[in-house]
Amino acid sequence: MKSGYHHGDLRAALLEAGLTLLAERTADALSLREVARAVGVSATAVYRHFPDKAALMHALAQEGLRRLAEAQRAAAAAAGGGAAGFSATGRAYVRFALANPALFRLIFASPGAPTMAQGGPHDAATFLHDNAAAQLPPGADERAVGIVALQAWSLVHGLAMLMLDGQIEAEDALIDRVLPPEPQ
Amino acid sequence: MKSGYHHGDLRAALLEAGLTLLAERTADALSLREVARAVGVSATAVYRHFPDKAALMHALAQEGLRRLAEAQRAAAAAAGGGAAGFSATGRAYVRFALANPALFRLIFASPGAPTMAQGGPHDAATFLHDNAAAQLPPGADERAVGIVALQAWSLVHGLAMLMLDGQIEAEDALIDRVLPPEPQ
Repeated sequence: MKSGYHHGDLRAALLEAGLTLLAERTADALSLREVARAVGVSATAVYRHFPDKAALMHALAQEGLRRLAEAQRAAAAAAGGGAAGFSATGRAYVRFALANPALFRLIFASPGAPTMAQGGPHDAATFLHDNAAAQLPPGADERAVGIVALQAWSLVHGLAMLMLDGQIEAEDALIDRVLPPEPQ
Repeated sequence: MKSGYHHGDLRAALLEAGLTLLAERTADALSLREVARAVGVSATAVYRHFPDKAALMHALAQEGLRRLAEAQRAAAAAAGGGAAGFSATGRAYVRFALANPALFRLIFASPGAPTMAQGGPHDAATFLHDNAAAQLPPGADERAVGIVALQAWSLVHGLAMLMLDGQIEAEDALIDRVLPPEPQ
């Protein structure tokens, strides 16, 4: 058993271990005990940070949302921003889902997970909103921004879920065809 | 116990009972025994039609797909066909999901469920394809039709899943705002 983690370090290590385990199994199949074992600490040490499994899942979902927003931000920058950047964030969303299926489902399809709509300074929600606003003429009203954001989110979320659920082939090239880099 | 069902009638009655039970609980929580009880026959009588739970779920998903296609067809006809009709089928898809959450999840998000992509004369898949083709100039190539169909499907599937999973409010008026009746 390792020991001597600083408080913040252990929390970060537990999240990292949780994310690693989510690469191999679903969130349902994950236990606090297993995460403790992966980090080499006792279950009691884990409880100090996450009193129950729901608390750990909530933190993993938040960290997942943060990484998703980061991936989208990087894709937008690489595409040079603007309309091309907005479209690139959509492709990055679907690719993130395919690369991290259990984490993606935990973020968006778990009862009790934090929702992007629940308000608060959600990185991913803010990013989606600002991106949508940038596609509209300056001064567009909030309602119009919200609709553009929801249309874009629905499109990429639907494509991701249909691929994750095996309804259509999870083929990388198909992402570019359905969400073309160039505006049509 | 009722008895004396004709073969085809019992199958239909079992499906109907399964669909009714899916209005109250998820597919996971449904058992063959319970469906048998709802119809008033023995589990043995059920096994003649559905050897295991997976077989019943498969049949329920197929029946669900058929009803979904029917709802979309009715919506398209009521909207007068054309572009307005295509858009109406999208709104009907999301409304079907909200009205039948467990059935919708069974159709599209269950391992082992029949997929629209698996080929075969799937009513809903054919309907989606033909509708997409009708939005393009006559003689458009199959690849272009496939992309339009996938974009439309992704959009409505994503909106449905985000609403079912509580990411955005499952509000009827929001469906019309995200999928407007009039082309924008």
